[in-house]
Amino acid sequence: MRIEAEFMQQIAAAAAEQTLPRFRQAGLVSANKLASGFDPVTEADREAEQAIRALIRDAFPDHGIIGEEFGRENEDARFQWVIDPIDGTRAFISGIPLWGTLVGLTDNGDAVAGMMSQPFTGELFWADESSSQYTGPDGSRTLSTRQTTDLAEATLCTTTPAMFTGWRGDVYGALEQSVRLARYGTDCYAYAMLASGSVDLVVETGLQSYDITAMIPIIEKAGGVITTWDGKPAEAAGDIVAAATPALHEAAMKILNAR
Amino acid sequence: MRIEAEFMQQIAAAAAEQTLPRFRQAGLVSANKLASGFDPVTEADREAEQAIRALIRDAFPDHGIIGEEFGRENEDARFQWVIDPIDGTRAFISGIPLWGTLVGLTDNGDAVAGMMSQPFTGELFWADESSSQYTGPDGSRTLSTRQTTDLAEATLCTTTPAMFTGWRGDVYGALEQSVRLARYGTDCYAYAMLASGSVDLVVETGLQSYDITAMIPIIEKAGGVITTWDGKPAEAAGDIVAAATPALHEAAMKILNAR
Repeated sequence: MRIEAEFMQQIAAAAAEQTLPRFRQAGLVSANKLASGFDPVTEADREAEQAIRALIRDAFPDHGIIGEEFGRENEDARFQWVIDPIDGTRAFISGIPLWGTLVGLTDNGDAVAGMMSQPFTGELFWADESSSQYTGPDGSRTLSTRQTTDLAEATLCTTTPAMFTGWRGDVYGALEQSVRLARYGTDCYAYAMLASGSVDLVVETGLQSYDITAMIPIIEKAGGVITTWDGKPAEAAGDIVAAATPALHEAAMKILNAR
Repeated sequence: MRIEAEFMQQIAAAAAEQTLPRFRQAGLVSANKLASGFDPVTEADREAEQAIRALIRDAFPDHGIIGEEFGRENEDARFQWVIDPIDGTRAFISGIPLWGTLVGLTDNGDAVAGMMSQPFTGELFWADESSSQYTGPDGSRTLSTRQTTDLAEATLCTTTPAMFTGWRGDVYGALEQSVRLARYGTDCYAYAMLASGSVDLVVETGLQSYDITAMIPIIEKAGGVITTWDGKPAEAAGDIVAAATPALHEAAMKILNAR
């Protein structure tokens, strides 16, 4: 199953047509939400997912689709497309260009291709079976993770430390204490920066499969490791740890499982 | 003292020539920092500040300059330019395009003009004595803050909650509990989003004058209010609260001073 770069670009463009005109309109409208019944975020989400579904149905009519907004179709198919039209809705409604359109492809449950598009910055991160690629305002290149093996040299990203409660809060806190730098507020952009060699670790919890499937091949084909906290394939979603190198992943896993 | 838009654009372009080629190179090099003695972040900071200083000296030879990297010149002058070549160094080294080049102008200590440039996204936010303006990939427009007056409807930004310790941690925590949404990891970009009407509150502590001077006119001319936590002019730096409306500012001040 080979996915062409052009197909990824078509998906990104079709989604951007729906999301970008509504970006930074959300705030202006949200105060009137009840009065007008108009919610540009939900509208952007739904319209983008429909546009993506239409492209996939047309190109791969036998494939299945799983999307955040409209559920499943062809659910017994071997190949399944997994869509989050706007990952990082909170960034989106705050005007911050770290949200992304995520589309992944699974083959019998294994993520084998994926893309993350940030249309405001004009960036597309994507992977197929052979490599992980980037196109953006600073050009195109093959992605590869940084060679960080030591937690003390690592930059860690998470969307917010408030997502970790109970024992998860304890082990996340211990991990944060062991790294050089922790950054918050990054959503899917953090995984893209990991694949690009700009950060070293991403740790999150409570993820749905549409939040992460697209990013798995992008990280793996760039040389990174991504699993659940208990070492299962990341396709299971939930508690996720992604690392630039196997050694760094192992070091993070030790702390996340020290309870 | 009228500052032309073109001068702001010249400054932004001169700084971008130094910062942008080094953005996302930092991570690749930082592991070798000790071996090579090459630090692209510091280099970008220093080269950008020198480029900005050269433009200011040429256009306004009698004015003073205060910069993060190279200190003061003409310190008795009525007009002072206040420069932070890269605000958000941690975002910069993590590949995240929320850092900015900040240049403000004070007249007898009052901030009267300012700019924030994010060259990767191609955005310029700036204000002169008459208005606050934006130019970016989505066009140009006059900036104005959102009309939020109620904390329960507000989006709050801060760079990291970890910056608030002791009593500041307590009052910040209380403020965060009272808003609809809190976003982290935003650096100077948060003030730009406040001026743009995408978020409603920014609260930070420990700021230097070069971290905030540029943003003061951008927020004020867009209709916002920005002061220290004890109600002094924001030019004093330190503990800063910026709000979309006077009523929201007053509501936040009540919580920040409830100790």
